[in-house]
Amino acid sequence: MTGQRNIRLTLAFCGAAYHGWLCQPGVATVQGTLTEAIARITGERVTLHGSGRTDSGTHARALVANFHTGSSIPPVQLGRALNGVLPGDIRVLSSRRVPDGFHARRDARSKVYRYQIYLGPVLVPHLAGEHLHFPYPIDLERMQQAARLFVGEHDFASFAKTGSPSGGTVRRIDRCELKKRGRILSLTVEGSGFLHHMVRNMAGTLLEIGRGLMNLGEFRDLFVRRDRTLAGFTAPAHGLVLLKVKYF
Amino acid sequence: MTGQRNIRLTLAFCGAAYHGWLCQPGVATVQGTLTEAIARITGERVTLHGSGRTDSGTHARALVANFHTGSSIPPVQLGRALNGVLPGDIRVLSSRRVPDGFHARRDARSKVYRYQIYLGPVLVPHLAGEHLHFPYPIDLERMQQAARLFVGEHDFASFAKTGSPSGGTVRRIDRCELKKRGRILSLTVEGSGFLHHMVRNMAGTLLEIGRGLMNLGEFRDLFVRRDRTLAGFTAPAHGLVLLKVKYF
Repeated sequence: MTGQRNIRLTLAFCGAAYHGWLCQPGVATVQGTLTEAIARITGERVTLHGSGRTDSGTHARALVANFHTGSSIPPVQLGRALNGVLPGDIRVLSSRRVPDGFHARRDARSKVYRYQIYLGPVLVPHLAGEHLHFPYPIDLERMQQAARLFVGEHDFASFAKTGSPSGGTVRRIDRCELKKRGRILSLTVEGSGFLHHMVRNMAGTLLEIGRGLMNLGEFRDLFVRRDRTLAGFTAPAHGLVLLKVKYF
Repeated sequence: MTGQRNIRLTLAFCGAAYHGWLCQPGVATVQGTLTEAIARITGERVTLHGSGRTDSGTHARALVANFHTGSSIPPVQLGRALNGVLPGDIRVLSSRRVPDGFHARRDARSKVYRYQIYLGPVLVPHLAGEHLHFPYPIDLERMQQAARLFVGEHDFASFAKTGSPSGGTVRRIDRCELKKRGRILSLTVEGSGFLHHMVRNMAGTLLEIGRGLMNLGEFRDLFVRRDRTLAGFTAPAHGLVLLKVKYF
């Protein structure tokens, strides 16, 4: 790898038009679109490491990715060039050279997600793209009590996508906050690792608690019962935003 | 008009797909789309009075409209039925019966517009639909000084769309505030009446002042010179949002 540089990109994207991050044949993905853009600028087909997968339709404000390149284009100029060929719904916010050993996924310390819900009776158009519409009365205080119970190390098997590998479902949540500002309810979750659909299942479960369909005793049981069918619905992907990836 | 009811609608829409409010043959407009939806629900082709025109591509959070109908559908139910047939980028926020004499345009006391600008180096996708991207250093304080000079009764001929009728260009601005929050700059303007493109021309002129392309003396002259070519550029329509219409 003599002469190779390790480039770190910070990316924002609107996920509506993409089948998530990960390259898949025959469909538009963020990783695929970026890899193609990098090939157009550098002439190389690189391996692009993302900080993690995102679901189809999910958005990102600052996903981190890295790749090794033999190109001598200065990183800042490379970022600008990529924005010149990328569609407007994917943007390179920053591009810089990092030590060779940096790896966007392996070195990630924690990720911060936000699940966004609009509570008003009619979904206003400018929020429709990134908010779940939930026009029902909710018990916010009870939801906030449950949200706090997510913090810590737990077995999240009840919150993993059905059909996920069953081993290794213990995860640590460092922050789980539910805030209401006007008609917008935001669930902010920070953790070192997440199971497939985990934040969306956490959001759906909290909403069922808010509706009175589940009580806190039943909620606590979810960590013991390890049964996806007992937790709440999977909140739709378009309400989920990857806000930030933190590194050591 | 015996048996006729006067219905007042509050509307939110994303203007991207519309050639503004006013009905025009052969193109999608908000008034046309709504008139069609009302016809589908009530069976009547009504005359829909809007609080004012909006430019092609401009958005609204709460435009007010009214129409007279012989339909006996209760107003709240009518609003829900309209949302059932309207595209998601136009929403009826409220629908209620008002006294026969109410007229959405004639009775409007003032309108509040916001022009939204994103100052960061790279336009983030979730703000792209409703913000002008202006990634240049600006002198915010000077812009705020100029913004305050808009308040009061002035001849806005220099800020009217070229080719507009030349008579009657005096307007009164009650509020003109420029606020920066993070990377977002918002110009909020309230007044009883606006000339065609007036807020967009005010925004473009303030940005030219912010860039140092116009000084405050030249700015003050605009009210006297009455010459559109001397004021700043017309800021694009997609950054403009009609926030509110106030009534007596």
